[in-house]
Amino acid sequence: MRTVYVIGIGSGDPDHLTLAAVAALQQVDVFFVIDKGEVKEDLTALRAEILRRHREPGSYRVVEVADPVRDRTAAAYTEYSAAVVDWQDRRGAQYAELVAGLADGETGAFLVWGDPSLYDGTLRLLDEVDCEVRSIPGISSVQALAAAHRLILNRVGRPVLITTGRRIAGGLPADVDDIVVMLDGGTAFAQLPDAEVADVDVYWGAYVGSPDEVLAAGPVLEVREEIVRLRAEARARKGWIMDTYLLRRHPADR
Amino acid sequence: MRTVYVIGIGSGDPDHLTLAAVAALQQVDVFFVIDKGEVKEDLTALRAEILRRHREPGSYRVVEVADPVRDRTAAAYTEYSAAVVDWQDRRGAQYAELVAGLADGETGAFLVWGDPSLYDGTLRLLDEVDCEVRSIPGISSVQALAAAHRLILNRVGRPVLITTGRRIAGGLPADVDDIVVMLDGGTAFAQLPDAEVADVDVYWGAYVGSPDEVLAAGPVLEVREEIVRLRAEARARKGWIMDTYLLRRHPADR
Repeated sequence: MRTVYVIGIGSGDPDHLTLAAVAALQQVDVFFVIDKGEVKEDLTALRAEILRRHREPGSYRVVEVADPVRDRTAAAYTEYSAAVVDWQDRRGAQYAELVAGLADGETGAFLVWGDPSLYDGTLRLLDEVDCEVRSIPGISSVQALAAAHRLILNRVGRPVLITTGRRIAGGLPADVDDIVVMLDGGTAFAQLPDAEVADVDVYWGAYVGSPDEVLAAGPVLEVREEIVRLRAEARARKGWIMDTYLLRRHPADR
Repeated sequence: MRTVYVIGIGSGDPDHLTLAAVAALQQVDVFFVIDKGEVKEDLTALRAEILRRHREPGSYRVVEVADPVRDRTAAAYTEYSAAVVDWQDRRGAQYAELVAGLADGETGAFLVWGDPSLYDGTLRLLDEVDCEVRSIPGISSVQALAAAHRLILNRVGRPVLITTGRRIAGGLPADVDDIVVMLDGGTAFAQLPDAEVADVDVYWGAYVGSPDEVLAAGPVLEVREEIVRLRAEARARKGWIMDTYLLRRHPADR
């Protein structure tokens, strides 16, 4: 039997690793690396730093493959969904092949940004693969964002919605006042009509937890232009961006 | 100046600690312990185990105080909210007093279950206290639950709602299909009308990550009675319970 760990490595700080994650990665024979292009350099650097700290050189193998190209031209949600599904089929076949390359009794691992349970598809891709899967939680960018701003995401007895930039582009949900946005390809909150965000604060962060961390917060109407500028500058400087934010509707009775 | 760390220690497994949390707790002069009664024994045991592993005996102090009694008789939500606010005022004064007991330049810490950013009030209570607060993320019970069931909480491009038992008791929200429930004093999902949960799966866990972990999953209509029974047994056995669950409405296109 083959074992495959999916290990959350946090959002940019090698010290986000849990002790359980360290123990897991010390049992790994083969680390699988999916080359995701633009973010590769930083994820590769973080992964290399983690292995340097916690493994002896030569005590493990690394198998690297290119990520299948994803159709990013699909604009509408249904097309988006279909493009993602097709892309995942191809990735699924790729993951099965990687795991099949393990010898009987060997252990493989995928080191993933953040937490395997939040907006990461690795566990889904391993669903159909013949192996024992173990998921090791990691600090998500949501948690790193909250910590950087010293935030509690929920208010007393109230809910928190975690959603995507695409989902809020059509408007904020009426029944939740604390909304965490991930996977925002732009700055969807900054394009919302003034009236909709007049009573909303934003707590924003990019590359949270890493040395490149950029933070900003305040009433949306006051800080949105600054955040759009900060984001564009950061993206231009690094070639990619990973940002997350909390939208908090008043009254701020936290 | 006084520094106070709020350190997430995970949901029951001492290996949930991050390396950053270990580094932080090694800098602490005084650990503040709020005696919360029923859960005390286990939280105290976990805290003691963590300090035993990562600190030399005699290298730190522990200051323990009793948690102000909270009015748990308030049934309606508005009353609940008022009771919590009053209780928090008294706790706030208590926290200020604890921090004031630090000598200048000393570092204090609260070790909290899970993550300081999710359904924990410590950061809020420190808002008005004169000190520098640092929040150190930890693995929440939500993440431990997801890992135990090898779940991804969201489905492709879709949102996740984190809410309370109280909030779903009146019915599940229509616009979100993946709902994580925390702070459920009972098993609110099991009391919902059959029609509302006919297409809903539940992934449930108690004491997740600890040696006492109990898990169950399946269609709500099939497993709700078993979960109610497991929960009652576990609670009777340990004297308290901390459980969390995901409600996932079909179609399950994850």
